[in-house]
Amino acid sequence: MEKIKAGIVGGAGYTGGEIIRLLNHHPDVAVSFIHSRSNAGKYVHEVHHDLIGETELKFTNSPSAVGGWGEAEVLFLCVGHGEAKKFLQENEIDEKVKVIDLSQDFRLHQHSATGHRKFVYGLPEINKAQIKTANNIANPGCFATAIQLGLLPLSEAGILKEVHTTGITGSTGAGQSLSATSHFSWRTNNIQAYKTLTHQHLQEINQSLQQPGEPLPEINFVPWRGDFPRGIFISSTLSCNWELSELNDLYENFYKEAPFTFLSRQEIFLKQVVNTNKCVIHLERAGTKLVVHSAIDNLLKGASGQALQNMNLMFGLDECEGLNLKATAF
Amino acid sequence: MEKIKAGIVGGAGYTGGEIIRLLNHHPDVAVSFIHSRSNAGKYVHEVHHDLIGETELKFTNSPSAVGGWGEAEVLFLCVGHGEAKKFLQENEIDEKVKVIDLSQDFRLHQHSATGHRKFVYGLPEINKAQIKTANNIANPGCFATAIQLGLLPLSEAGILKEVHTTGITGSTGAGQSLSATSHFSWRTNNIQAYKTLTHQHLQEINQSLQQPGEPLPEINFVPWRGDFPRGIFISSTLSCNWELSELNDLYENFYKEAPFTFLSRQEIFLKQVVNTNKCVIHLERAGTKLVVHSAIDNLLKGASGQALQNMNLMFGLDECEGLNLKATAF
Amino acid sequence: MEKIKAGIVGGAGYTGGEIIRLLNHHPDVAVSFIHSRSNAGKYVHEVHHDLIGETELKFTNSPSAVGGWGEAEVLFLCVGHGEAKKFLQENEIDEKVKVIDLSQDFRLHQHSATGHRKFVYGLPEINKAQIKTANNIANPGCFATAIQLGLLPLSEAGILKEVHTTGITGSTGAGQSLSATSHFSWRTNNIQAYKTLTHQHLQEINQSLQQPGEPLPEINFVPWRGDFPRGIFISSTLSCNWELSELNDLYENFYKEAPFTFLSRQEIFLKQVVNTNKCVIHLERAGTKLVVHSAIDNLLKGASGQALQNMNLMFGLDECEGLNLKATAF
Amino acid sequence: MEKIKAGIVGGAGYTGGEIIRLLNHHPDVAVSFIHSRSNAGKYVHEVHHDLIGETELKFTNSPSAVGGWGEAEVLFLCVGHGEAKKFLQENEIDEKVKVIDLSQDFRLHQHSATGHRKFVYGLPEINKAQIKTANNIANPGCFATAIQLGLLPLSEAGILKEVHTTGITGSTGAGQSLSATSHFSWRTNNIQAYKTLTHQHLQEINQSLQQPGEPLPEINFVPWRGDFPRGIFISSTLSCNWELSELNDLYENFYKEAPFTFLSRQEIFLKQVVNTNKCVIHLERAGTKLVVHSAIDNLLKGASGQALQNMNLMFGLDECEGLNLKATAF
Repeated sequence: MEKIKAGIVGGAGYTGGEIIRLLNHHPDVAVSFIHSRSNAGKYVHEVHHDLIGETELKFTNSPSAVGGWGEAEVLFLCVGHGEAKKFLQENEIDEKVKVIDLSQDFRLHQHSATGHRKFVYGLPEINKAQIKTANNIANPGCFATAIQLGLLPLSEAGILKEVHTTGITGSTGAGQSLSATSHFSWRTNNIQAYKTLTHQHLQEINQSLQQPGEPLPEINFVPWRGDFPRGIFISSTLSCNWELSELNDLYENFYKEAPFTFLSRQEIFLKQVVNTNKCVIHLERAGTKLVVHSAIDNLLKGASGQALQNMNLMFGLDECEGLNLKATAF
Repeated sequence: MEKIKAGIVGGAGYTGGEIIRLLNHHPDVAVSFIHSRSNAGKYVHEVHHDLIGETELKFTNSPSAVGGWGEAEVLFLCVGHGEAKKFLQENEIDEKVKVIDLSQDFRLHQHSATGHRKFVYGLPEINKAQIKTANNIANPGCFATAIQLGLLPLSEAGILKEVHTTGITGSTGAGQSLSATSHFSWRTNNIQAYKTLTHQHLQEINQSLQQPGEPLPEINFVPWRGDFPRGIFISSTLSCNWELSELNDLYENFYKEAPFTFLSRQEIFLKQVVNTNKCVIHLERAGTKLVVHSAIDNLLKGASGQALQNMNLMFGLDECEGLNLKATAF
Repeated sequence: MEKIKAGIVGGAGYTGGEIIRLLNHHPDVAVSFIHSRSNAGKYVHEVHHDLIGETELKFTNSPSAVGGWGEAEVLFLCVGHGEAKKFLQENEIDEKVKVIDLSQDFRLHQHSATGHRKFVYGLPEINKAQIKTANNIANPGCFATAIQLGLLPLSEAGILKEVHTTGITGSTGAGQSLSATSHFSWRTNNIQAYKTLTHQHLQEINQSLQQPGEPLPEINFVPWRGDFPRGIFISSTLSCNWELSELNDLYENFYKEAPFTFLSRQEIFLKQVVNTNKCVIHLERAGTKLVVHSAIDNLLKGASGQALQNMNLMFGLDECEGLNLKATAF
Repeated sequence: MEKIKAGIVGGAGYTGGEIIRLLNHHPDVAVSFIHSRSNAGKYVHEVHHDLIGETELKFTNSPSAVGGWGEAEVLFLCVGHGEAKKFLQENEIDEKVKVIDLSQDFRLHQHSATGHRKFVYGLPEINKAQIKTANNIANPGCFATAIQLGLLPLSEAGILKEVHTTGITGSTGAGQSLSATSHFSWRTNNIQAYKTLTHQHLQEINQSLQQPGEPLPEINFVPWRGDFPRGIFISSTLSCNWELSELNDLYENFYKEAPFTFLSRQEIFLKQVVNTNKCVIHLERAGTKLVVHSAIDNLLKGASGQALQNMNLMFGLDECEGLNLKATAF
């Protein structure tokens, strides 16, 4: 089989770097070009230093030099929010080039199209059939992925009314731009709440959790900045009178076709999933309350790993190809 | 004025070390003896290495060698839960020796006495008058302090019905005993929930928040292990229809006599209070919900700092004596 | 091709876990059994929690239950120093079973045999031909690997007389046993020297750096405990009058057949190699001095990754099979 | 006694914040004004958030509004390198105002004056008498302090010829400006060498270690960036044939009048001194080599703490006033 030709737009950032790391080891993909405005002309390993010895590609900001955007069969858009839509509007890209957009530009139904391109929300756990035939994927947000995977079985079962969710994210979730809250001296040993009850991912979460004919569940979400680089940990509390065993069965059944999402009967912790594409979920009952814990790597299942999972599905490959990653573990 | 003679029981642990660090710089206190079973005979600075040059005391396990327990006018009990009660039962200690117990043994009304000793719950923000005349203090728990200080104004105002609280604690909260979850390789870069909805501090929190003739507020508390050494950060979410300005006034008024507890109109973060005896609180409103954030240093306002604050009150000293600490800040 | 059957002895520790993580994704290996005395009967993913969904193997302490040690074609010994030799003496293991020992028991020429087994020092950068035909490998130590790879080109060129080396290691280098210096509260934000000038790896380093007929180079090595979980960073300073360009050429030439060891013309840093099998080296000249910086992941190139690299060579596989790992990067 | 009036120039940075934290608790000092160009008009506690409740001062960029620079009896200059000299040249400041400059502008003899101001190198361990009568102090650099205190007894004893020194510094050493190497995602869990053998502090170190009529000792210094916020740890290796007991005596004698610098007979570690003004030193011998370990807090003994120590000496106060700090310890 000939290799799938992939192009990366915005390859110098965190999610761009992760997709390069993944594609470099994917048996069925060849990277055609890696676009970057800020680093054009540099070797990729001069920016992503861990790639020394793995690639001799240079960043380009001129697609024509590499045969045009159409050289790629699939484009990963790893640019900022708002930039993805602009990129597609400003560049003529052959319709047959598939697009996987990691920004939030096309995640909501009411904003899911531009020109001829219509985007499918790329959460394989609920949209696998649609993803397989999609030409354009809106890749979910990181917090959105972790929270949805924790709550979807409950909303589908009709028992999700109101939930109180706290989530903590690693510093890579905020990207590589420099800011007071990304300064090491501030962030190390520190915790802070931000965007209390107003995080932008609530919109896509609501869209997924909404059941036809039912009132919208109320998600009270308090995000925290964590003092670690990778990962998201979530605890969601809600009223629930199901038995724990019924709930465990519900979750295992819901995710039985999901190769990366696991219900754990043991306590979970963040580092279980760091540097993997996994999501782990653990349920606890006390009194009339249920607590759902979930954890992902924000840059993998929360971004570039899920993007590659979507690519695999779109091209008819094994969903796990290139994603059987060695966890960092420590 | 002659210096107050203080004795420390269990001086080799984290809270024992902190009380030594504080008392060493207190202008009105002299440490008579520091008791430790496991380290008797060693210099104190051989165990608490930062104290090099500050004290030539050795740990003792034999009070008679130092004139008996009665040599101290105040005893700080820094031993494990269950050990404090046992210590008081097994040792004959003159009634006039004041006791400040940092364990949980005497915090609940139904367990607040042993022999002739009757303990007062040592949270100065609500019990200052009683503490001033008390001979025995049950020093509050660390999570209990941070959660109560965040919620007390609401319960007193009669508007606290149900609250969802997430809290994260530094590793020193678990003491210096070695365990899988205190191993650096596991804990660094990691997050884990534990004692979900069942943390033992809920009992003392309930006792303080209970208003006469009112139903007990429901505290749904999910504690997390954090990957930092010192500090507790809390976010509590509840329904509330008061205006933010009214709430801010409520809190400022409630804490106007509290020299260490501050309402902040700016966002707060954990490191603001690390290595201080302060508690900072910040309120946010969204829709019908109120979120109360609070932060303390678990070893100071959550343990040894509050113990010294109580000592100051018991001996008629300025409440802040010896507690104007330089924050670590970074 | 039929898969190579591998057995792991001491599979519950850090290096054991890493070799399982690697073998799980190796296309040509099947794990036959994983031995552990302390965790026999437990699922492997109950101890190495990140392996959830990847293996349903349980730890065993009874080789007979799995067909005997001879069920494996290759045994990875991941037990403590001294334990490996004892294991081979106490268990009857068919001669045709290859052994890769990660302990220090057989690294020195004078201790490189037990019974019929004769061990080859498994540093592929200098011993590749011998490793390919070896039946028994003594896998190098972590500091030893990082220091040797930084200095070998110089000793072979005859210009290594005396060197001053400082190295810092992550906490996983000390294994998972609990100790005061592995406690999170102590180790986080901390640095300490240990085994100053007397680290046990000096012996194997000397053995490799010794050139026939030349005096032994003098390695003054000060190891430090670092406050991070994975990785080793080394800076070695020596007198040298070669030009930097000559030195860079020397290193590139020396490592031209080494698929994991790279000379970098850019500054290097520890996280470049974390969760990979790479070693990166960077040279700097100032005045009459040369400084050689080198970095590895102590658990991979410094332990289990190198063990697998050796296995690949012993079985005639591509040296990199199963070792094209995604770096953690952040 | 009337309080000494202090002014701070550049009060919004790290060292400025630390001197405010210290002066706030100094019994004999009142802060007259805190200058900042970037934050003028803001409350000090809006920038240094830990100071909530401690000061109602605002930053000013207009000295006239506060009575002119001459309102202060002592000015702490906490501005960048090059800025201090410029400040003194551009502003008319009464000669009787003492100046303590934390930049490197006046540390070297050949650059130790501007206008009528002649600066004394403010390392009390060697210059106490001069400091007591000085009107202008050039406060030493952080690495310079830690390295000098480790080596001064040897150079004075005439046994320091060549030394190999590795040092690691916390992120606060690089100030609060945003840069790639201060980004949390990069710096956490990371180590990197920088300014290899060429660090600018070598000049002031050489100046102090130079003995009259002796050749300049050769200091080979490799600095590392550490993944912690505060502190410097140094290991220096040299040839030496003195007995360890003689060396320990030499150091104890050398520092017998130094209230913050201690020889430890036990192993030392970085966190021993974090958030204190102490320097701890530990000596180890092996073969013909001596290794000197030393540790300080880069912002205190390495900057603002030493500045205050100098102020105490200049004003005839107890050298330790306001500097008996509670260590963070964990």
